[in-house]
Amino acid sequence: MIFLTFSENSLRHFTESVFSKMGCPETDAKLAADVLLRSDLRGIDSHGVARLSGYVRLWEKERINAAPFVRVVHETATTATVDGDGGLGLVVAPFAMKIAIEKAQIYGSGWVSVKNSNHFGIAGYHALMAVDQDMIGISMTNASPLVAPTYASERLLGTNPMCYAFPAGKYPPVVVDMATAAAANGKLEIAQRANQPIPDGWVQDKSGQVSLNPHELKDGGALLPLGSDKDHGSHKGYGLGATVDILSAVLSGANYGPWVPPFVSFLEPPTDPVGAGIGHFFGAMRVDGFRPAQEFKDHLDNWIERFKGARTVDPEKQVIIPGEPEFAFEIERKKNGIPLIDAVVNDLNELALKLGIAGLS
Amino acid sequence: MIFLTFSENSLRHFTESVFSKMGCPETDAKLAADVLLRSDLRGIDSHGVARLSGYVRLWEKERINAAPFVRVVHETATTATVDGDGGLGLVVAPFAMKIAIEKAQIYGSGWVSVKNSNHFGIAGYHALMAVDQDMIGISMTNASPLVAPTYASERLLGTNPMCYAFPAGKYPPVVVDMATAAAANGKLEIAQRANQPIPDGWVQDKSGQVSLNPHELKDGGALLPLGSDKDHGSHKGYGLGATVDILSAVLSGANYGPWVPPFVSFLEPPTDPVGAGIGHFFGAMRVDGFRPAQEFKDHLDNWIERFKGARTVDPEKQVIIPGEPEFAFEIERKKNGIPLIDAVVNDLNELALKLGIAGLS
Repeated sequence: MIFLTFSENSLRHFTESVFSKMGCPETDAKLAADVLLRSDLRGIDSHGVARLSGYVRLWEKERINAAPFVRVVHETATTATVDGDGGLGLVVAPFAMKIAIEKAQIYGSGWVSVKNSNHFGIAGYHALMAVDQDMIGISMTNASPLVAPTYASERLLGTNPMCYAFPAGKYPPVVVDMATAAAANGKLEIAQRANQPIPDGWVQDKSGQVSLNPHELKDGGALLPLGSDKDHGSHKGYGLGATVDILSAVLSGANYGPWVPPFVSFLEPPTDPVGAGIGHFFGAMRVDGFRPAQEFKDHLDNWIERFKGARTVDPEKQVIIPGEPEFAFEIERKKNGIPLIDAVVNDLNELALKLGIAGLS
Repeated sequence: MIFLTFSENSLRHFTESVFSKMGCPETDAKLAADVLLRSDLRGIDSHGVARLSGYVRLWEKERINAAPFVRVVHETATTATVDGDGGLGLVVAPFAMKIAIEKAQIYGSGWVSVKNSNHFGIAGYHALMAVDQDMIGISMTNASPLVAPTYASERLLGTNPMCYAFPAGKYPPVVVDMATAAAANGKLEIAQRANQPIPDGWVQDKSGQVSLNPHELKDGGALLPLGSDKDHGSHKGYGLGATVDILSAVLSGANYGPWVPPFVSFLEPPTDPVGAGIGHFFGAMRVDGFRPAQEFKDHLDNWIERFKGARTVDPEKQVIIPGEPEFAFEIERKKNGIPLIDAVVNDLNELALKLGIAGLS
């Protein structure tokens, strides 16, 4: 695999140009690019600019609205439902999170469910918006069905990630950002490229039997929930995926379960939708709504130090604080640039050619 | 194993008498008994009256305050911190959840973090209090350290359960109520009694190696987080356990991580506490803060029907809706009584003798 490295700025400029060409207003193009870039900076390569041409293909099929009228359609003092008007999740999600934060500023907490949206990038981006305001940030989304609940032989849930982010004091924020499947699709894709067998417990075949084939999903197989099998708690991973689905979609009026539209242009959305687009859910709680913020941060620092200092199985390895690796990536890549594999670079340059903008160099 | 069956009423009366003898005010004794009975009714035998003598032993050691002054010590419109004054979690938790519900009635949502509490029974009891008011209920607690985070060879987290409960229409509520460990302690106890090996992925020994020994925890071993190992997402189970710990204790001012006091009288609490007692976290959100409640319930019914009707691996088995088995137990046991194993009955009768109250017959 060949990597080419680009500066944050050049990739950001390129990405903004693509969204502008799609017809996004300038502020939206900048925001959407920021969400994708943050993912690449944080080392989550599967959710960054590698997905850019996917967004464009969905827009070409008129399944993404580049200039949506995103708005609140229902609310109380601390809750709201947002209609994303088919817009980019990369734009709709920060809009919704901002409302949650504004409500929290006044009332202590704010909670927003979103319908009629699309793929929102990394959950961590949105949750971290709250952390910047000394709040706890919560962010989740449903996604097109890839996961079979315990006992099922069909796909009913997405990898439905949930994220909880907490502001620390002298350390980076604690960011728990996780798919509720045993292994997210990105890990499968790595095994697919290498054509190597995957660990037992990631996927099942179309009849529900154990499979080590990384290509099994193409043959009607399914990802397994976190826990992998009943003995190891797959019903818990299924329960978490269900929680994300209900908060994001049953609560907002989006599509849920097997009705969630696929995030790829070559698969058509179900013809019998039960709601609008895909759904997200966001929350923000002021830390000082519970105790003085500095007290919380001091104790979270102490928590972090105790866990990092824990006795480990392998003395070479430390316990990792959730969010720590992504923070380290962000510092390193801001300085040294973002490496992209050649296949992604070629894909982006073809996209540039098609849209009539300058390619990556 | 011999089972003896008791009516709900006789067990309830007995349990209330025990709490009254401890010095609980009458309403508290009734409430604490209700939480334990609900657990037995719902088939969660490990968290019901089987624990009663454990509560008494902690009270004898003055580690539970039978007549606490439970109060709000910090709040905003929709957030609060409650000091449980060392009381029974069975009493402190419903007090806190009630505050969350009252705030949600006015502002759409309410969130309460609790310090200085004790074991609160089943998480589902508290979350279901919100469901009764057409709200989504959230409930979690930290617990004494039994779980080793990914890469660690020491216990730093409890089995830290989280519960999300949602009101449905014609079906029982969807209740996701789960420990964030691969297998909760109760499952281990069953294997201990039978002296049978446990599945790979539940526990590790004191050096962090795989163990199939159900007694491993007594030799310094640890439970594993949901996901079991890094390849299968144990860092996610660890992240969820961490989330529960931070929301319940770092946020409220309770003890967290390895400082959480043990819930058994023969182990002393750490001598260097970082907070007060154990911590819980509760939330309530009005469904009609997001969309009309009936709309939500109709769609949740549709969600339930689709999942129950899913194609399954074994045609004899259906996909289980979270909370469905507990609801079935509750109907059955309300009618036919609650079976207790003879060891539990003997334990309760010894307790009765010690306290000078009538035993179970």
